[in-house]
Amino acid sequence: MTEKLVDILQNAPSNWGKWGDADELGAVNYLTNEAVLRGAQAVETGDVYALGTPIGRKAGDPKSPSRQGAQHFMARDEGHYEAGKVESASDDYMNWADDVLNTYLHGTTHIDAPGHVWYDGQLYNGFDATTTKGGLDRCGIEHVADHGVVGRGVLIDIARHRGVDHLGRGERIELSELQECLDAEGVELQKRDIPIIRTGWIEAFYDGGVPTELEKLDEPGLTYTDAVAEWFHEMEIPAFGTDTIANEQTNSEETSSRLPLHPALIRDQGILFNEILKLDELANGCAENGTYSFLFVASPLKILGGTGSPVNPTAIT
Amino acid sequence: MTEKLVDILQNAPSNWGKWGDADELGAVNYLTNEAVLRGAQAVETGDVYALGTPIGRKAGDPKSPSRQGAQHFMARDEGHYEAGKVESASDDYMNWADDVLNTYLHGTTHIDAPGHVWYDGQLYNGFDATTTKGGLDRCGIEHVADHGVVGRGVLIDIARHRGVDHLGRGERIELSELQECLDAEGVELQKRDIPIIRTGWIEAFYDGGVPTELEKLDEPGLTYTDAVAEWFHEMEIPAFGTDTIANEQTNSEETSSRLPLHPALIRDQGILFNEILKLDELANGCAENGTYSFLFVASPLKILGGTGSPVNPTAIT
Amino acid sequence: MTEKLVDILQNAPSNWGKWGDADELGAVNYLTNEAVLRGAQAVETGDVYALGTPIGRKAGDPKSPSRQGAQHFMARDEGHYEAGKVESASDDYMNWADDVLNTYLHGTTHIDAPGHVWYDGQLYNGFDATTTKGGLDRCGIEHVADHGVVGRGVLIDIARHRGVDHLGRGERIELSELQECLDAEGVELQKRDIPIIRTGWIEAFYDGGVPTELEKLDEPGLTYTDAVAEWFHEMEIPAFGTDTIANEQTNSEETSSRLPLHPALIRDQGILFNEILKLDELANGCAENGTYSFLFVASPLKILGGTGSPVNPTAIT
Amino acid sequence: MTEKLVDILQNAPSNWGKWGDADELGAVNYLTNEAVLRGAQAVETGDVYALGTPIGRKAGDPKSPSRQGAQHFMARDEGHYEAGKVESASDDYMNWADDVLNTYLHGTTHIDAPGHVWYDGQLYNGFDATTTKGGLDRCGIEHVADHGVVGRGVLIDIARHRGVDHLGRGERIELSELQECLDAEGVELQKRDIPIIRTGWIEAFYDGGVPTELEKLDEPGLTYTDAVAEWFHEMEIPAFGTDTIANEQTNSEETSSRLPLHPALIRDQGILFNEILKLDELANGCAENGTYSFLFVASPLKILGGTGSPVNPTAIT
Repeated sequence: MTEKLVDILQNAPSNWGKWGDADELGAVNYLTNEAVLRGAQAVETGDVYALGTPIGRKAGDPKSPSRQGAQHFMARDEGHYEAGKVESASDDYMNWADDVLNTYLHGTTHIDAPGHVWYDGQLYNGFDATTTKGGLDRCGIEHVADHGVVGRGVLIDIARHRGVDHLGRGERIELSELQECLDAEGVELQKRDIPIIRTGWIEAFYDGGVPTELEKLDEPGLTYTDAVAEWFHEMEIPAFGTDTIANEQTNSEETSSRLPLHPALIRDQGILFNEILKLDELANGCAENGTYSFLFVASPLKILGGTGSPVNPTAIT
Repeated sequence: MTEKLVDILQNAPSNWGKWGDADELGAVNYLTNEAVLRGAQAVETGDVYALGTPIGRKAGDPKSPSRQGAQHFMARDEGHYEAGKVESASDDYMNWADDVLNTYLHGTTHIDAPGHVWYDGQLYNGFDATTTKGGLDRCGIEHVADHGVVGRGVLIDIARHRGVDHLGRGERIELSELQECLDAEGVELQKRDIPIIRTGWIEAFYDGGVPTELEKLDEPGLTYTDAVAEWFHEMEIPAFGTDTIANEQTNSEETSSRLPLHPALIRDQGILFNEILKLDELANGCAENGTYSFLFVASPLKILGGTGSPVNPTAIT
Repeated sequence: MTEKLVDILQNAPSNWGKWGDADELGAVNYLTNEAVLRGAQAVETGDVYALGTPIGRKAGDPKSPSRQGAQHFMARDEGHYEAGKVESASDDYMNWADDVLNTYLHGTTHIDAPGHVWYDGQLYNGFDATTTKGGLDRCGIEHVADHGVVGRGVLIDIARHRGVDHLGRGERIELSELQECLDAEGVELQKRDIPIIRTGWIEAFYDGGVPTELEKLDEPGLTYTDAVAEWFHEMEIPAFGTDTIANEQTNSEETSSRLPLHPALIRDQGILFNEILKLDELANGCAENGTYSFLFVASPLKILGGTGSPVNPTAIT
Repeated sequence: MTEKLVDILQNAPSNWGKWGDADELGAVNYLTNEAVLRGAQAVETGDVYALGTPIGRKAGDPKSPSRQGAQHFMARDEGHYEAGKVESASDDYMNWADDVLNTYLHGTTHIDAPGHVWYDGQLYNGFDATTTKGGLDRCGIEHVADHGVVGRGVLIDIARHRGVDHLGRGERIELSELQECLDAEGVELQKRDIPIIRTGWIEAFYDGGVPTELEKLDEPGLTYTDAVAEWFHEMEIPAFGTDTIANEQTNSEETSSRLPLHPALIRDQGILFNEILKLDELANGCAENGTYSFLFVASPLKILGGTGSPVNPTAIT
C-alpha cells in the first residue's frame, strides 16, 4: 500500500522556525564559530584531500541519469591563434586560453540548496513552493555559499568496516551500523559534526561496475525511519556527504517512497546534502593515520537562485 | 618603442624544472603540509568569509568584457509541476528543482590554471603551447584542484592603507607599498603565504563606479618589474588574489605590454592568480580584530583540461 | 494618461475560434494550398535570396539587448586531432569537425510562435497563460514548423520609397504609406500574402549606425491603431516580416503601450512575426527586375514548446 | 586487410577547381536559376511537407550518439511573472515568453557544410584542414546558407519499393536499386535534382526499434563504390537526403572504411548531406498522388564557421 509522503513523514522532526521565520540557511546555522574552531582543531598532519569528482570525462561522469553531462568547450586555445581565429598575439603580449562550462548544478559533486526539494507545497522553513519558479527566491544556494560550510568532518567508512570494496546494489545501512563503524574507527561523532559516509560506490562507478541508467539507479545507503531522522536532529547535523549520487538508499526498504531522506532531512530540517564525493584517498589516509576526523571546507558558488552548486570539498587532516 | 615580451621578461625568474620536468602544478607545490599547518594555526576566531562574487545578477557580474555573462536556467521548478511539464509529483514523493549553469570559467571569481597563458610557444614548465588545443593537456586546472589550494592568507588592504574607498583607474601599486601596508597592519608576510591584495575595485563595480567595457578596462594594481617578479620568486608565493578582474595594473606603466605580470608569474613561475575576489567583509573583519592572517582555502572544480575554474574561496580567521 | 492594454485593444479584431477552439496555429492557417500555389506562381527568374542574418559575429549580432548573444564552440576540429584530444584518425577513416550553438530563439532572424506573447492571462485562441510554464504547451513553434510557412511574399520597400538609406530612429510608418509604396512598386498585395516591409534598419546596424542598448532601442515601423489591426485582419495576413528587431515602432506614438502590435496581432489574431530580416539583396533584386512578389518559404525548427525559432527565410523570385 | 582512405578513394571523382580555386560552396553551385525553376515547376498540389524531426523530446531525439542531446530552457514564462522573477507586467503592456536552445549543429535534422569532413589534410577544394581550427574558415555552412538550397527533389522510397516498414540493420542499397525504384515510381531523376532516399529508419527510431548507442549504430544505405561516386558526379547531384543519421551504410560492405561516402562525396565533390529527415508524410503523399518530385527548399542558418546547421526542409508538391 502506498502512503502519502505527509503521512510517512508525520513524525519527522523539523527545524522550521528554529532560526527565525526568515531563515533560508537551515542546519548550516549549526556551523557556528565554535563548530568551525572544533574543525580547525582536527587538523594534525596538514594533508589535504580534494573530494570532488573530475568533470568532463569522455566516458561520462557520475551523476543522476535525469541530468545531461557537462559540456566543456574552448573559446580560445593555441589552435585559434594558429588559424587566425582570434587576434594575432603580438610579440609583446601573451597568448591565452579560454573556455566555457555548461553543467547541471547537480551534475557532478555538489551541495543541495535547502530549497532543492519540497512536498505539500512548502520548502524548508515553510516557504511556498511557488517561490522556486524561475529560480529559488528562497533557500537558494547563494545563502549557503555566503555562510560557508566549514566544520569538523568525520569519515564513517562503511565499506572498509564491512571489508568490501563497495556496498552492493540497493544495500541498506542501518543507523546502528554507523555507530559500530565509528566505534571501530575509534572516533567520536560529536554534535554539529559533518558525517561523511563511504560506500565505495563512486569508486565502483569508475571501475565500470555501477550502471547509471535511471531505471537501474539503485544505490546503497541509509533510508528514512523516524529514528534516523531523529538522530540527525538530535546530533544537530548541519550537512552530510556520501560517495553516492543521492546520499541514501534509492529504493527505500522502509517506506513506499523513493528517496524519502531527501524531504525528511532537506525540507524538514534544512540539512545540506553533499553528494557524489570521491572518498578513496581520504579513506586510505584516515586508515593509515588511524584518525578519522578533519577540517571540512566545502564552498558552493554563489549562484543566485541556484538549487545547488558544484563543489570540490576539501578535507584537511 | 615596443619591446618583445621575451625581451621584457628576459630577467624574469623562473620555476621551470624546480619540481621536475613533468610538473603541471607550479607554485602551488609550495603549499606543503607545513604551509597548510601554518594556515590552520592562523585560525583564532572561527569567523568564515566567503570571497566569491554572486553569479547571475540581472545587472551583470564583474568579469572581463571579452567573456559573456553566465546563464542560469531552470530545468525544473514548481512551475513545471503546475503546468504538467514534468511527471506529476505523486502524493508519496517529493518535488524538486533542477537547473543549469553556462559560464566562462573566468567569468566570475576564479583561479587561473598554470597553463592559462603563454608566450614564445611554451607554457609553464616548458610544455608546448600546442597542447592547449581542444583543452589543456598540460597544466590544466584539474591538477590544482586535485592538490588543493590551502595555506596561510594575508590581507594587504591597500585601499584602507591609503584611506580611500577604492583605488583610482589605472593606479599603480608599488612593491614598497605592500611592505608599508603590512607594517601598518602589524602582520608579517611569511614565505609561501598567499597575499590577498585589496583595492576596493570590485566594491566600486557594485556601486556602479567601474565600467566594464573592454576598452575601458583600466584597473589598478601591481605591475611587472624585475624586482616585483623577484619578490614573488623569493617569497615563494604559491598564489595571490585581488579584488580586480586581472590582478594587475591593466596598462603597465613600466613595460610596453598589457598585463605583463600574467606571463611573468603564471607562465614563468607557475603562480596561481585568484581574480575577482569580494573582500569587503574580510577587510572589515580584519580591521576590527586587528589580525590580517587567516586560513585560506580555495577549491577549483576538477574540470578536465580547464584553463581555470570558478571558486568561492574561504578565509577562516 | 496610461490606458490598460485591454482598453487599448478593446476594438482590436480577433481570430480566436476561427479555426476551432483547439487551434494552435493561428493565421498561418491562411496559408492553404491555394496560397502556396499563388506563391509558387510568383517565381519567374529563379533567383534565390536568403533573408537571415549571420550568427556569431565577433562584433555582435542584431538582437534585442534583453537577450544574450549566440555562442558557437567547436567540439572537434583539426586542432583536436593534432593535439590528440580526439581519437586519432586512422589512415582509412576521415577526420571531421563538430560544433555546438547556444542561442536565444529570438536572438537572430526568427519567427515568433503564436504563444510568444499574451495579456489578460490568455494566449492566442484563449489558452491560459499558465500553459507557458516550462515551455509552451500550447501555440508553440513546433506546430508552425510542422505546417510550414509558404506563400506569396511582397516586398514593401519603404526606405527606397522614401529615398533614404534607412528610416530614422522611432519614425512611424502609416498604413496609407504601405499602399502608396505598393502602388509605386506596381504590385498588388493580395489577401493572404506575406508583406515584407523594409526600413533599412538592419543595414544601418551593420553600418554601425544603430545602437542596440535596450534603453536606446527605438525602432521605426508601423504601430497599433484600430485601422492597422483591421487591415491585417481583413487582408488575412498570415505572417509579416521586417528588417527591424521587433517589427513595429518601439515607442508607439498612438498608444501608451510599448510594442502594442505584438499583442494585437500575435495574441489576438495569431499572426506570425518574422523579425530581424536581412533585406538589402532582395530589395536590390526587386528594384532591378521591377517585380516585388516572390515565393516566400520560412521554416522554423520543430523545437518542442519553443516560443519561436531561428530561421533563414528564402525568397524565390 | 585495411586500405588507406587515399587508396580506397583513388578513383573517386572530384569537383575541386570546377568552380574556381576560391569556391567554398561545392556542388550546391549546380543549383542554378534553371535548377530552381525546374523545382518550382514540380509544384502541382500546393501540399507542404516539413521534413525536420522534433527537437527536445524527453525520450531523446535521433542523432549520432557521439553528440549530446539538445537542451531547451525557458528564460521567461508565466511562472517567472507569477513569482516576480521578471519585472511585473504592467496593465498596459504584454507578457512574453523567451527561451534558449543549446544544440549540436548535427544533433537533429541538418545539412553538413562542405568543410565538415576531410582526409589527407585537405578539405573540399583543397583547403588546408588546419583552417577548421576554432571554426571553419573555409567551406563553412554560412556560404551554403547565403546561397540557398533550392531545387527539384525526387523521393526514392526504397522501403516502400521493398514492401517493408523499414530497412534492416546494416542493409545495403545498391545503385541499381535506386533506378529500379525510380522506374517503379514512374519518375525520372534529372541531372542536378536532389534525391531523397527513404529507408523508414527514423520512423523505426520513433517506434522504438532502432537503438542509438554508438557501438550499435549500424544503419542501412548506399555505400562507396567507384560506380556510386561516379553516378553522383555524372548526375551533378548538388545535395542528397535520407531518413538515417548518416546517409549511408554505417559499416561499408565494400571498403574497409567506416562511412566512406562522406569523404568521397562531401570532401571530394562538395555534395551536401541532408541527414535525419522525417519522410513518412511526404512518402504517403507521394504514393497517394503518384508524383514523386517536388520543390525542395532547405535553409541552413548562417552560422559563421559552422560545420553544418539544423534545418527543417520544406518539400512542396
